[in-house]
Amino acid sequence: MKIIKDSVHDHIQVDGVARALLDTPAVQRLRHISQLGTVSLVYPSANHTRFEHSLGVYHLACEALERLGIEGRQAHRVHAAALLHDVGHGPFSHNLESLTYRRTGRYHDDVDDLLADGAVGDVLREHDLDPAAVAGLVAGEGRFGQLVSGELDVDRMDYLVRDAHHTGVPYGTIDHGRLVRELTFADGELVLDEGNVQTAESLLVARALMNPTVYSHSVARISKAMLRRATERLLEASEPDIDAATLQRMDDHDLIAALRSCAATSEFSRRLDQRDLFKRAVWAEMNDVPGGIIESDHGMIREFEREISDRAGVDPARVILDVPSRPSMTESTTRVMVNGEIRQLGQQSPLVEALRAAQFSQWRLGVYSPRELRDRVGRAAVDVLGLDIDGALVSEVRNGMDATLDQFVE
Amino acid sequence: MKIIKDSVHDHIQVDGVARALLDTPAVQRLRHISQLGTVSLVYPSANHTRFEHSLGVYHLACEALERLGIEGRQAHRVHAAALLHDVGHGPFSHNLESLTYRRTGRYHDDVDDLLADGAVGDVLREHDLDPAAVAGLVAGEGRFGQLVSGELDVDRMDYLVRDAHHTGVPYGTIDHGRLVRELTFADGELVLDEGNVQTAESLLVARALMNPTVYSHSVARISKAMLRRATERLLEASEPDIDAATLQRMDDHDLIAALRSCAATSEFSRRLDQRDLFKRAVWAEMNDVPGGIIESDHGMIREFEREISDRAGVDPARVILDVPSRPSMTESTTRVMVNGEIRQLGQQSPLVEALRAAQFSQWRLGVYSPRELRDRVGRAAVDVLGLDIDGALVSEVRNGMDATLDQFVE
Amino acid sequence: MKIIKDSVHDHIQVDGVARALLDTPAVQRLRHISQLGTVSLVYPSANHTRFEHSLGVYHLACEALERLGIEGRQAHRVHAAALLHDVGHGPFSHNLESLTYRRTGRYHDDVDDLLADGAVGDVLREHDLDPAAVAGLVAGEGRFGQLVSGELDVDRMDYLVRDAHHTGVPYGTIDHGRLVRELTFADGELVLDEGNVQTAESLLVARALMNPTVYSHSVARISKAMLRRATERLLEASEPDIDAATLQRMDDHDLIAALRSCAATSEFSRRLDQRDLFKRAVWAEMNDVPGGIIESDHGMIREFEREISDRAGVDPARVILDVPSRPSMTESTTRVMVNGEIRQLGQQSPLVEALRAAQFSQWRLGVYSPRELRDRVGRAAVDVLGLDIDGALVSEVRNGMDATLDQFVE
Amino acid sequence: MKIIKDSVHDHIQVDGVARALLDTPAVQRLRHISQLGTVSLVYPSANHTRFEHSLGVYHLACEALERLGIEGRQAHRVHAAALLHDVGHGPFSHNLESLTYRRTGRYHDDVDDLLADGAVGDVLREHDLDPAAVAGLVAGEGRFGQLVSGELDVDRMDYLVRDAHHTGVPYGTIDHGRLVRELTFADGELVLDEGNVQTAESLLVARALMNPTVYSHSVARISKAMLRRATERLLEASEPDIDAATLQRMDDHDLIAALRSCAATSEFSRRLDQRDLFKRAVWAEMNDVPGGIIESDHGMIREFEREISDRAGVDPARVILDVPSRPSMTESTTRVMVNGEIRQLGQQSPLVEALRAAQFSQWRLGVYSPRELRDRVGRAAVDVLGLDIDGALVSEVRNGMDATLDQFVE
Repeated sequence: MKIIKDSVHDHIQVDGVARALLDTPAVQRLRHISQLGTVSLVYPSANHTRFEHSLGVYHLACEALERLGIEGRQAHRVHAAALLHDVGHGPFSHNLESLTYRRTGRYHDDVDDLLADGAVGDVLREHDLDPAAVAGLVAGEGRFGQLVSGELDVDRMDYLVRDAHHTGVPYGTIDHGRLVRELTFADGELVLDEGNVQTAESLLVARALMNPTVYSHSVARISKAMLRRATERLLEASEPDIDAATLQRMDDHDLIAALRSCAATSEFSRRLDQRDLFKRAVWAEMNDVPGGIIESDHGMIREFEREISDRAGVDPARVILDVPSRPSMTESTTRVMVNGEIRQLGQQSPLVEALRAAQFSQWRLGVYSPRELRDRVGRAAVDVLGLDIDGALVSEVRNGMDATLDQFVE
Repeated sequence: MKIIKDSVHDHIQVDGVARALLDTPAVQRLRHISQLGTVSLVYPSANHTRFEHSLGVYHLACEALERLGIEGRQAHRVHAAALLHDVGHGPFSHNLESLTYRRTGRYHDDVDDLLADGAVGDVLREHDLDPAAVAGLVAGEGRFGQLVSGELDVDRMDYLVRDAHHTGVPYGTIDHGRLVRELTFADGELVLDEGNVQTAESLLVARALMNPTVYSHSVARISKAMLRRATERLLEASEPDIDAATLQRMDDHDLIAALRSCAATSEFSRRLDQRDLFKRAVWAEMNDVPGGIIESDHGMIREFEREISDRAGVDPARVILDVPSRPSMTESTTRVMVNGEIRQLGQQSPLVEALRAAQFSQWRLGVYSPRELRDRVGRAAVDVLGLDIDGALVSEVRNGMDATLDQFVE
Repeated sequence: MKIIKDSVHDHIQVDGVARALLDTPAVQRLRHISQLGTVSLVYPSANHTRFEHSLGVYHLACEALERLGIEGRQAHRVHAAALLHDVGHGPFSHNLESLTYRRTGRYHDDVDDLLADGAVGDVLREHDLDPAAVAGLVAGEGRFGQLVSGELDVDRMDYLVRDAHHTGVPYGTIDHGRLVRELTFADGELVLDEGNVQTAESLLVARALMNPTVYSHSVARISKAMLRRATERLLEASEPDIDAATLQRMDDHDLIAALRSCAATSEFSRRLDQRDLFKRAVWAEMNDVPGGIIESDHGMIREFEREISDRAGVDPARVILDVPSRPSMTESTTRVMVNGEIRQLGQQSPLVEALRAAQFSQWRLGVYSPRELRDRVGRAAVDVLGLDIDGALVSEVRNGMDATLDQFVE
Repeated sequence: MKIIKDSVHDHIQVDGVARALLDTPAVQRLRHISQLGTVSLVYPSANHTRFEHSLGVYHLACEALERLGIEGRQAHRVHAAALLHDVGHGPFSHNLESLTYRRTGRYHDDVDDLLADGAVGDVLREHDLDPAAVAGLVAGEGRFGQLVSGELDVDRMDYLVRDAHHTGVPYGTIDHGRLVRELTFADGELVLDEGNVQTAESLLVARALMNPTVYSHSVARISKAMLRRATERLLEASEPDIDAATLQRMDDHDLIAALRSCAATSEFSRRLDQRDLFKRAVWAEMNDVPGGIIESDHGMIREFEREISDRAGVDPARVILDVPSRPSMTESTTRVMVNGEIRQLGQQSPLVEALRAAQFSQWRLGVYSPRELRDRVGRAAVDVLGLDIDGALVSEVRNGMDATLDQFVE
C-alpha cells in the first residue's frame, strides 16, 4: 500500500493492482503530459499533469465503488481503468487530439493495444484482469464504464475541482463528495439518487462556467491553434522519422524539444515559448458566419487559410482559421431519480436548454495572425468567408474593447 | 486604524468613520444576530453573524470604491452605509422579518431613525456625514446606493462566499475579486464592464444553487416557521411588555431566553433547542396548489391553519402552513456592457429565464406538524386547501423517499 | 445513517449509537455553547460551537479506529465517548471552568452522572454500552481513553484545524489526515508510527503558535476575566436560585440573559456586549513577579484586588487581577516510534524544551481596569504585588507600544 | 495594466516596468523551470514553476512597499528586482546549482549580465532604471535588498505558501498577509514591528517543518542526486557543445530532452522518467560520520564513490554519495522590535536554538545505489567512509523500517 499526498484530495491510498500499475512506464509518463496544455498561458498556475489527475480519478472511483458496494474483481477492473484512463493521451492532452485522430484514426480513449502490451499488460494479467475488459471500461462500455467515462463519471468530478484549484477560477468547485455519495444503480444505469436534481445541475453549471473562462478562453484557443499548426508542420517536415504514431507516444518535453530544433517550426516555437502570440483578426458569432463553414473539414479550412493569406498578401504561415465544432451537451442525458422514476436531466431541468443556448451564443469562429497583420488579415478573412463585417472584425478601430477583453488574461 | 482578521477576506483594515462606528452599540449588537438563523439546524457550522458579514461588506465596498476611483466624503458615506447596512435586523435576521414588518411597517433596511439617533448619529455627524444620506444608501437610493443594495451590490458578494465557507456548500464560491474589479459606472448606472456576461451569470447561478440547498432547505424552512410561530405567540402573550418594536431591537440571546421563559412558547422553544422539529405533512408543487392560495395574506393563512387543525382534530398549535411568495429574480436586471452598450442580463443570457423557471419548479407549499400527526394533518390540509393529493401528500406511504430527502440534513 | 455537512471535514457520516445520541438534549445543547468563548471578541469569525466540534471529534475517532482495525462494541464505546466528550461543558466552555470547579469540584470531563441519566443513559444502555465505561473514556482512562483524551487525542486534532478555519489564523492547520493514519498501538500505548517525529512536532508547534495568538490573546484574556468576574457576582447575587450546578447546565444564551437582567452584573454585561473592555494596567513577565504570587489561590487573588482598589481609591469592581497558572506541556510525553522503540517526544525533540521555554517567556500576569483608571490602578498594583515597575506597568507613557500591541485585535 | 489570476494570491495586478518585463524572453522562460525540481517525484501535484512564483514575489513586494510608503523610482526598482529575482536559475532550479556554480562560479542570484543585456536591459533602461542597481537588489544589497533577498524577504513568504498549496503539506501555510503588514524600517534595517516575535517564529517554524517533509525528503534527495550525476555526465560527454554556461540557460524541457538523447545519460534519464530510483544503501546521522567527511569537496566525494564501487565490485555509475553541507539557519538574525528596541530573533526566541539542533539531528549522509546492489554498496561504503555500521546501514535486515519510512512518498 502506498499513500500519496495530493493537493486536491489530500491523502490517496493506492492498493492492489493500482499499486502495481503506478510503477509502469505508461503511467509514469503521464507526469510529463500537462492536464490543460496551453491554458497555462492564460492561468500561469495551471501546470498540473495527467498523472495527478489520474490518481484523483482512481481515488474517486474507489470511493464511488465503496458506496455502491462493489468489491472483488469487478472493482479491481474499475480501479485499473480509472488509473489508466488517460494513458492514451499524446503531448498536451486534448490540444493535438484532432490532429492525431485525423492521421491515426484513434482518440485518446482507444487504448486496447496500450493496455495489452508491455508492463501494463503484464500487471493486469498478473492480477487476473483482462486488458481488453479494462480498455472497454476506459471507452465507457458496460455498466461500470459509465463510472469511468459517462455523464456522471469520476473523471469529470476530478478535473473540475482540480482545474479550479490550479487555475484559481472557483467555478469548478463542485461538491464531489456529495456526487460520489449519491451515485446508485437503477435498471443497470448509473443514476443520481432521489433529491439530487440540484446536484446534477451543479455539475452541469460548473462545466458551463469553466468552459468559456478556462477551457475555451480566447488566448488558450489561439495558442492551441498555433501549437497544432506547428506540430502539423513538424510532421510534414520530419516524416517518416516523426509520424503521428510517434508523436502520440511523445510527452510534452519531447514535443517542445522537437519544435525548437526543427527549422520549419522554430518560429512558432519561439512565439509559444515567449508568449508572443497571434492576435484575433476575426472573432465571429455563429449568426455572422454563413451556413456550411462550421461543417468544414480540415482540408477546406487549410484552403480557406490559403485564400485569406493570398488576398491579404501575407505568408500563409501567418494565418490561422479556427472553427470550433457545433456545441454539444452530453450532460443533458444525466439520469436522476425523481419521485421514484429515472429521468434525464434534460427533461427535468430548464437549465440544460439554457446552457445549451449559452454555448451557442458563446461559440466564436476565430482568425488569428501576428498583431501587425491583424487588420489586413481580418479584412481578407471577412471577404473570403463571407462574414458579417460589423460583428466579426476585431480591427484597430475596436482596440478599446479588445483591450478590455484581454484584461483578464495573463 | 484597526486590522481585523476575518476567516473569509483574511485581513480587513478599518479606518476613519468605519473605525469609529465599529465601537457603537448598534454595530457591536450585530455580533449577537446570526447571519442565517435556523439554517444552522441543517448546516451546524453555519454560526456566523451579521457582524463579520458587515465587516466583509465594508471591505468589499472599500475595494470597489478604490477601483472606481471614488474618494473623500462620497466614499466615506458608502463606507458608513456598508458597515451599517444590517443594523436594522432583528433577532435571527430575515427569519422574523415578515412578522415585524406586519406589525411595524418596516423592513430591516429602513434605518433612518437608527442612524440619526444615539452613538451612530453622533459618529456620523462628527465625521460630517448626514445620517439621512447614509440611510438612503442603505435603502439603495442614488448612484452609490446600487453598490450597497442593488443587483450588483457587495452585500450579495460577501454573503454568498461567507455562507459557502461556513456551511461547507461550495456553490456560493463566486469570484468576488473579479466582480469587484469589473464594476464601473456607465450613464450613472453601476454595470459590469465589457467581457463579463459570464461573471454576471456566475453570481446569478451561485444564488440559484445556494437557494434550495441552503437558504430554503426544507428543514431550515420548517424551523423558521416554528420560530416565527413561537415569536408570534410570545408577542400575543407578552404585549405590551414585549411588542414588535421591542422585539426588533432584541438580539438572538434575548429572544431565545424570552421564548424559553414564556409558558406560551416553551414547548416550541424546547423543540427548537432539541431539534425535535415538526415534519412535512404536505409538500406541494405550484401546479398542485389551487390559484389564489399563493396570494393569501397572513390572516387567511391563520384561518386555513385553524380549518386544517379542526378537520384533523388536533391542537391548532400543532399545524403550520408555510406559503412562500412567488419567486422573483432581481438579478435579471443586472447591467453588463456588451459591445459598447449597456444590456440587462435578462436580455443577454438565456440562463436568467431558465433559473427563473427553476425557481418556480422548486417552489413548495408546506404544511408542518409533529411527526405523529403528520398523516392526519396532511389529509386534512389536502382537503382544506384543495391540493392535488398525489403530488402533495408526504404520508407514511412515501416514507422511503422522504427519508432520502432527509438524508443530507443534519 | 445521517450525513452531516461540516465546514472542516466536509461530509460526516453518523451511524449507530452516535446517530441515536445526536438527538439527545445533552448533545443538541452543545449547539449553544461557543467553542472559544470570548475569543470571538478578538477574531469575529470565531463563532463555532461545541456541537460541530463534537461531530468533528467523532469523525476523526471513526477514521482512527478504522485504521487501527478496532470494531464492534469497543469501537462503539469510543464513538459514543467522542461525541459526548464535551457534554460536561458549561456556558462559554473553558472560560468559566475554574469558577465552577471551585464550587462543584468537577471539571467538564467528569461526566459520570450526565452519561448515566436521562436520554443519553437510555441510548447507551439500549446499545449495550455501559455509561460508566464511556465516561471513563471521556476522562482518558484505559487503552482507548488516550484516543479521546490524551497527548495524541482526536479532540486536539479537530480543535486546532477548526479554530484555524474559523479564526483565519493559519497556525493550527495541521495535517490531521496524516496524524490519524499514523496512529498505532505498541505495548498498549497509543503511539505515532515510525518516521513521524516531525508529525508529532507539528502538532506541538501548532498548539504553541495558536496559544498566544488565539487562545491567550490579551483581549481574549481580559474579556474572559470580566465574564468570570461578572458570573461570580451573578452567583453571589442570585443564590440559591442560580447556584454553580445550575450555572453548569446553562448554555450561552441563558447566561448572557441572566447577566443582562441582574442588577449586580448589568454593567459588566453592557461592557461585554458593546466590547467596551477593561484595559491592561499591568502586564508583567514572570521575572518581574515576586515568588509565590503565581501560586495564589482564589481567596488570595480577591484579597490582592481589594488591596489594589483600596490603594488606588477605586471601586473594587473596577480591578481584576489575572494570574495564569504555571505553563505545562502535556505533549512532551507524546510517544513516537523511533528505530523500533517507543520514545517520548520530549526525549527525542529539542523543540519540546524550546516551546516550554517559550511558554514561560510568554506568561504574563495582568491587572485590568477601565481605561481611565488604568494609570492609578497600575501604580497601586505594582506596589501591592511588589512588581518590577519598569517591566510591568502599561502606563500612558507606553501608550505607543500598547497601541501597536492592540493593532491586531478586533 | 494586466490582471493575472493566481491560485495562491487570487488576482495579481501587473503595472509599469513589471508589465513590460513580463513579456521578455528571460521572464517567460521561467514558465519552463519547475519550482521544486525533483520534489514532484514525492508530491505529484508540485508542478508549479518559477514563473508563477516570481509573480507572487512581485505581488507581495508591491504590498510591502505600499505599507512602507515607498513610491516612485525606488519602488519600481524593487518591483523589477522582485519579478526578475529568479531569472538566473538554470533547469530544475536549485537542483543543479552546486554543479553549475562549480563550473561557472555563479549562483542564481548573480544576474548582472542577464539584467544588462537583451530585452530585460532595454526595458529597464526605458523605465529609467539602472540594471546594475536592480541586480544589486536581487543579490540582497542595500536597504531594499533585504526585502528581495534577506531573512524577511517576500521570496520566502511566497514560496512557503505556494509550496504548501501545491504539495498539499500544510506546514508552509504562514500568515503572509500579517508578515507583509508588519514590516517596517528601523535604523535602516528591515524589521518586524512590535508584537511580532510570534510572527517571526511562525516563519522559522514553517521552514523548519517544510524542510525535512518536502525540500529534503529522502526521495527528493535521491532523485536530485541522480539528476545531478546525469547532468555531469552529459557535460562530460557533450562539451564543448553543451558546457555549463549553455546548461545554465536551458530550461527543464531542454535538459530532459538532452539527457534522453545522450547515450551516456539515457539510463539515468530512463530511471528518472519512470521513477525507477536508486535506494538508500546508507543513511547516516552526523554522529555516525567521522570528522572531516562533511567538509569533503566535490573531488573528494567522487574519489570516495570510486573507492566504494571498487570495494563493492560494481560499476562506478551505480554509486552516489550525497553529503549535505552543515545546516545553517539564516532566520536567526531576523530582526524584531521588542519593547522599543531591535532584537535578533536568535536572542529572543528559544525556538531558534531548538530548530538549529533539530536540523543537526535531521542531517543525513546518504549513499544510493540500485535496489539490488544496496547491500553490497552499503557495506562497502561503511568501510570506506568509516561509518558506524549499526547506525548507518539500510540493509535488508532493516527493510521493515525502511518500508515504513517510504510509506508517505509517492
